[in-house]
Amino acid sequence: MVRVAVDAMGGDYAPQEIVKGAVRAAREDGVEVILVGTQDAIREELNKYNTSSIPIRVVNATQVIREGEPPTKALRQKSDASVMVATQLVKSGGANAVVSMGSTGALMASAFITLGALEGIKRPVAGGAFLGFAPHTVVFDMGVNADCQPRQLLSFATMGRVVAQKMLNIPNPTVALLSNGAEEGKGNRLVKEAYQLFKKSNLNFIGNVEGNDIPLGRANVIVCDGFVGNILVKFCEGLSKSIIGRLKVTLDGRLSKEEIDAIGKELFALTNMADTEGGGLVYGVDGVVVVGHGRSRAPQVAGAIHSAKLAVETNLIESLKSELARMPKIGG
Amino acid sequence: MVRVAVDAMGGDYAPQEIVKGAVRAAREDGVEVILVGTQDAIREELNKYNTSSIPIRVVNATQVIREGEPPTKALRQKSDASVMVATQLVKSGGANAVVSMGSTGALMASAFITLGALEGIKRPVAGGAFLGFAPHTVVFDMGVNADCQPRQLLSFATMGRVVAQKMLNIPNPTVALLSNGAEEGKGNRLVKEAYQLFKKSNLNFIGNVEGNDIPLGRANVIVCDGFVGNILVKFCEGLSKSIIGRLKVTLDGRLSKEEIDAIGKELFALTNMADTEGGGLVYGVDGVVVVGHGRSRAPQVAGAIHSAKLAVETNLIESLKSELARMPKIGG
Repeated sequence: MVRVAVDAMGGDYAPQEIVKGAVRAAREDGVEVILVGTQDAIREELNKYNTSSIPIRVVNATQVIREGEPPTKALRQKSDASVMVATQLVKSGGANAVVSMGSTGALMASAFITLGALEGIKRPVAGGAFLGFAPHTVVFDMGVNADCQPRQLLSFATMGRVVAQKMLNIPNPTVALLSNGAEEGKGNRLVKEAYQLFKKSNLNFIGNVEGNDIPLGRANVIVCDGFVGNILVKFCEGLSKSIIGRLKVTLDGRLSKEEIDAIGKELFALTNMADTEGGGLVYGVDGVVVVGHGRSRAPQVAGAIHSAKLAVETNLIESLKSELARMPKIGG
Repeated sequence: MVRVAVDAMGGDYAPQEIVKGAVRAAREDGVEVILVGTQDAIREELNKYNTSSIPIRVVNATQVIREGEPPTKALRQKSDASVMVATQLVKSGGANAVVSMGSTGALMASAFITLGALEGIKRPVAGGAFLGFAPHTVVFDMGVNADCQPRQLLSFATMGRVVAQKMLNIPNPTVALLSNGAEEGKGNRLVKEAYQLFKKSNLNFIGNVEGNDIPLGRANVIVCDGFVGNILVKFCEGLSKSIIGRLKVTLDGRLSKEEIDAIGKELFALTNMADTEGGGLVYGVDGVVVVGHGRSRAPQVAGAIHSAKLAVETNLIESLKSELARMPKIGG
């Protein structure tokens, strides 16, 4: 049975919603859960449920890193922070994966320090499906690496392909660079140089795609630097919020409140996958690490635990390792 | 009376819709229009309307540059191209502004060659209001300059401020850099370096904004490089199209077809301002140049002519010149 260490103290609704989601996962999803954090607080929450017959237990950690604390400094000062203890369980073999609802920075730093990086990776990478309109498309990097070298984009593509194969069951995923024009020769310097690397690679590279190609899912793996990825994901969240808000006004009085809410929820889910799926994997580290949104409640926590389980069951990290090792050693 | 040279041969629906839009502008908007292109074809269209009492006339140009032709090469080979002749009318003083529905590349190149660049500008810049949700916000650069220096971003900000003042009537526009985090120190190298220049400038600089701040209109002028701007604008178009398409399915049978269409149109207008307003100004050239979408029909053509008229009446170019001249000469 897959064993997942869950940081019970991370997120806006910790520990209540974290424990609730963990109980649900342990009961319904066939995973064993280790809740890591302030023992008394966790036990108080656990007492609300009948957990006698489900695989869930508690590991104590006396410290907590709050949202907004500078991650590396916080980790240095708080060696018994819940996120650190949970990550160490993966390192020691006590768990197969770690899940936290934040802070993202602390989890990433903790994972990078404790588990180490995969070959050729300088910093962790965020990626995954981005839009419900394009469920067979993953975007890498969705927000970590602001300044990239062409070779980094190649490593994003390599990881994206493995994820599309393993998590989305696409045998030979198409790969594209996000650019300001479809033709070869379009792009900023980074994209133009990466284009040449991609062409020579063993990727199923179909060239550049443009911004409007993302919701159309014109490639299975769309590669961009983390600066562009971050802006896109946040812009998408903000725009969908504005559109939903406007629709609520426009539809008011024409449809029932329930219908309007359902439409808003559907559009929200289509445009905020990280929120609704519960969390995304952190790529480039030597272990299964899932980070969820700080706003996550129990269903998203259970979803994040499920993502971790899938990644373990499909041997995702082993595949990432072997594919990254096959990347040519020279170049950008 | 403002006199606008209109490239009658540019755009998917040229010359029919161009002539129709020009007639409307000349009749209703108090502008004089010079239609430039194949004389016979234009006259044939003009004969459909009673133009005896409105200020509209034709200047012949024997060649046309099609969408997709490499602009500089095409301009070299086709010195009598309609877009070139129309731009030359501005240079010679025969017109106050030029309007074309494309190709964008040919118009920009023609304007840059014929009218020349404003001080410190290396390439033309696209900018303006981007989202109906944020009508008091302009974004610069929306798509031309893929690789930028920090100092270029400062010139975008300077131009954006003039545009916000003159075209949106905002006395002291706030200026922000688009970044992957709000705090100083967030950003890619370009944004971090530009941040320091902006801080020392006379701009009303409020720091970084993030992707979700764009629809909220968190600053009056949002600055990014043209690579990011292009991807954002196209992503926005594509996403809104997907959302509208989904809504049509969801609302089918619950609202009348007319109501659904009206909702779709409202959302389209809020998310495709360049389309609905008819065109954007090309900045950084020494003259009023408006480029519209290739798909433009008569209303958008009239809208583009109106934008040109406004820019002439507000002495936009003179203001841009004096503000750019005031920029510090040193730096990135």
